[in-house]
Amino acid sequence: MSQKPSLAKGTRDFLPEQSRKRKFIFQTIEQCFVHFGYQPLETPAMENLSTLMGKYGEEGDKLLFKILDSGDYLKDVPTEIWADPAAAKMLPYIAEKGLRYDLTVPLARTVVMNRHLLPFPFKRYQIQPVWRADRPQRGRYREFYQCDADVLGSDSLMYEAELIIIYLEVFKRLQIPVKVQYNHRAILEGMSVKMGREDLFLPMTAVLDKLDKVGEEAVINELVELGFDTKQVAEMLNALRDKTLASFEFNEKGRLGVNSLRTILDYIQSSISDLSDLVFEPGLARGLSYYTGTIFEVVPTSVKMGSLGGGGRYDNLTGVFGVEGISGVGLSFGADRIYDVMEELGLFPSEINNPVKLLLLVLDEASHRFAFQLANRLRGEGIKTDVYPEPGKLKKQFKYAEDIKAEYIAVIGEAERDKSEFSIKDQATGQQTNCDIESLIKKLKG
Amino acid sequence: MSQKPSLAKGTRDFLPEQSRKRKFIFQTIEQCFVHFGYQPLETPAMENLSTLMGKYGEEGDKLLFKILDSGDYLKDVPTEIWADPAAAKMLPYIAEKGLRYDLTVPLARTVVMNRHLLPFPFKRYQIQPVWRADRPQRGRYREFYQCDADVLGSDSLMYEAELIIIYLEVFKRLQIPVKVQYNHRAILEGMSVKMGREDLFLPMTAVLDKLDKVGEEAVINELVELGFDTKQVAEMLNALRDKTLASFEFNEKGRLGVNSLRTILDYIQSSISDLSDLVFEPGLARGLSYYTGTIFEVVPTSVKMGSLGGGGRYDNLTGVFGVEGISGVGLSFGADRIYDVMEELGLFPSEINNPVKLLLLVLDEASHRFAFQLANRLRGEGIKTDVYPEPGKLKKQFKYAEDIKAEYIAVIGEAERDKSEFSIKDQATGQQTNCDIESLIKKLKG
Repeated sequence: MSQKPSLAKGTRDFLPEQSRKRKFIFQTIEQCFVHFGYQPLETPAMENLSTLMGKYGEEGDKLLFKILDSGDYLKDVPTEIWADPAAAKMLPYIAEKGLRYDLTVPLARTVVMNRHLLPFPFKRYQIQPVWRADRPQRGRYREFYQCDADVLGSDSLMYEAELIIIYLEVFKRLQIPVKVQYNHRAILEGMSVKMGREDLFLPMTAVLDKLDKVGEEAVINELVELGFDTKQVAEMLNALRDKTLASFEFNEKGRLGVNSLRTILDYIQSSISDLSDLVFEPGLARGLSYYTGTIFEVVPTSVKMGSLGGGGRYDNLTGVFGVEGISGVGLSFGADRIYDVMEELGLFPSEINNPVKLLLLVLDEASHRFAFQLANRLRGEGIKTDVYPEPGKLKKQFKYAEDIKAEYIAVIGEAERDKSEFSIKDQATGQQTNCDIESLIKKLKG
Repeated sequence: MSQKPSLAKGTRDFLPEQSRKRKFIFQTIEQCFVHFGYQPLETPAMENLSTLMGKYGEEGDKLLFKILDSGDYLKDVPTEIWADPAAAKMLPYIAEKGLRYDLTVPLARTVVMNRHLLPFPFKRYQIQPVWRADRPQRGRYREFYQCDADVLGSDSLMYEAELIIIYLEVFKRLQIPVKVQYNHRAILEGMSVKMGREDLFLPMTAVLDKLDKVGEEAVINELVELGFDTKQVAEMLNALRDKTLASFEFNEKGRLGVNSLRTILDYIQSSISDLSDLVFEPGLARGLSYYTGTIFEVVPTSVKMGSLGGGGRYDNLTGVFGVEGISGVGLSFGADRIYDVMEELGLFPSEINNPVKLLLLVLDEASHRFAFQLANRLRGEGIKTDVYPEPGKLKKQFKYAEDIKAEYIAVIGEAERDKSEFSIKDQATGQQTNCDIESLIKKLKG
């Protein structure tokens, strides 16, 4: 029976310290969502495959985890499949459910199913795991959390401003220095029009998106190779370098994009005086097959790391389920990367390492009862308190205090019991303080 | 492409109000766990089937959701299977992962894998969903949350006392009137010994467990049918009715159980003066194939509903993974039933129905910018604030305020902008109050 157990490939346990750190990130984000009027939504991990298939492209269909039907899953397989069994052909007969691949398709499904119950604009947030049968590698997991906020059913540019402010606010609270880059799809479209090749819009944005990585010369070459005019490409690169909105008002499309961005900035400026962390990035082109208006992305400025989140406006979220005309704008936080940045910069509050504020060590049986009573009193005051499970040798008890990283310890013996006075030791500094119960509560709550 | 989407059978969406109520329950429980020194653990939804199979009995193996291997899942199926394909025989070749069935086996796995990193006694809590391919019915779902706390690696009876106090504390905070019933396996064993049929211990407890449902006469008949002596059965039933610990000190086993329970009560009594919600229930016999010492169960006293949680002491959690000697004690909360009881008794705090404290309605474009700025100021103060997305007719805006159940509303126009004075309307009472910004913040934060 006995075996050496292991984790499923690409999955992770979160042991207490990691779990507390992750909770700190999610709680900070969630609190911000709630203050901004977003409402929680939870959807099941299992969805019908008919809901999921065909929504993420051919590659996405492959990356969906499929759940085998329960019971005799072979009973519906038709005889012709047995003659020449193939995985893809057999699949519809043996698996009708799959695991959630993102939070967007389930959002669309639930909005369609509950559209007469939900208020519009509907502001929802959702923080739940998703699963993808990707090849696991450093930083890429088969099970990971997504953390999204979206507003559905309104075209108001106020929401773009709101979501950008949420980014600034969350990263301020997490103390991660970031810049928020923004752009508008119409500006990229305007560029392709100005260069006379609207037909090359998508390949053009794919090349521009690489500017930071491959440099200007390579980008110029690639654009010319695509079929753009050399002179116009040079002009465009100048504008990209310039990064002022006014440089992109060269045609109708450009003006549309610039005007939208100006309105959004106007909203933001009413609330935030220093806009230096907001950067117009006319080459930014993330997920243009999905986004139809403003797009934005957060990048850390003091660590070398990819984006910590992104978002934008999209059209017709629910069209695929037969309900047209629900547009939206949303953003997403990349929790795993945020975790890594916070670790690298040492930004987690130190209390996270101390799950127990005070551990009581005990010398004898009667002191143990007394310590248990004292601990419950402190717990009632909201102080994380624990008691070593039995009286005895202090060496073992001191070691346990170190193992669980108690912030303070106190030894309870006959004297402490009799006088209800305690000597509290700060485990980090070694400093000892004498207190009675009232001053103990005050000290530990403060 | 378009289709009418649906939920996978036995699964649920949690729309905002439900989700907030569920979060309220989980946060109340989690906060209590944390104050009592329990540490969070999260394990993946997907586990290797080798970890899960054989741990929940034959029936459990059937109820595990299995995940189809990715890619060409048929490639490893040996030819002899194709000759006579059977679901059970093919399974090991096409599915190596399954969904978490409970939180106990993953706990055992992670403790075995990380035993040199974890402090012992290890106090962990875990609140995560589990999946079971049960036939869905009222109150039974295929995806539901479990909410467990366990202490591993100590025999100290202090932990039994601690867990019972956690039950009392959590239900006090949730305001659900409950009683905690407790018993000890040795007391049940002692009864079977006293009646001269230790060999009938397990069937005897199964009959006793039905006492409440079927009544005394039926229980007597069933026990006699099992092979017990009529006179001894009558004597036993007297003791069960009596419900005093002293009645069960009739032999060594009985004394062992009684002494353990007395020690636990002694601990509890040091911290809680009124023990009237704690009830010794000598017939209580939950999961005796698993529990080896104290067992306990929480039942609501003002609603007709099954247990809201249970727990007890068990041996050798990790033996199945080759690591012997780690015993533990734990408890579990039944979140779905707690939710139902709280709904029935109207116990959710009323704020849960008001996701937005203040909604600002706006008359014109300039007021919209002003309202957005004001909202962000209030959000920064931790007040849940929102702004209607565009200026215009108030009728639609009033309706939105009702739809999202805003607690207060304020209309922003030229006058409000100019004077920075607002008339706040309490949506429940209709009462209007005039405030400047400072008194507004004070009112809404209070």
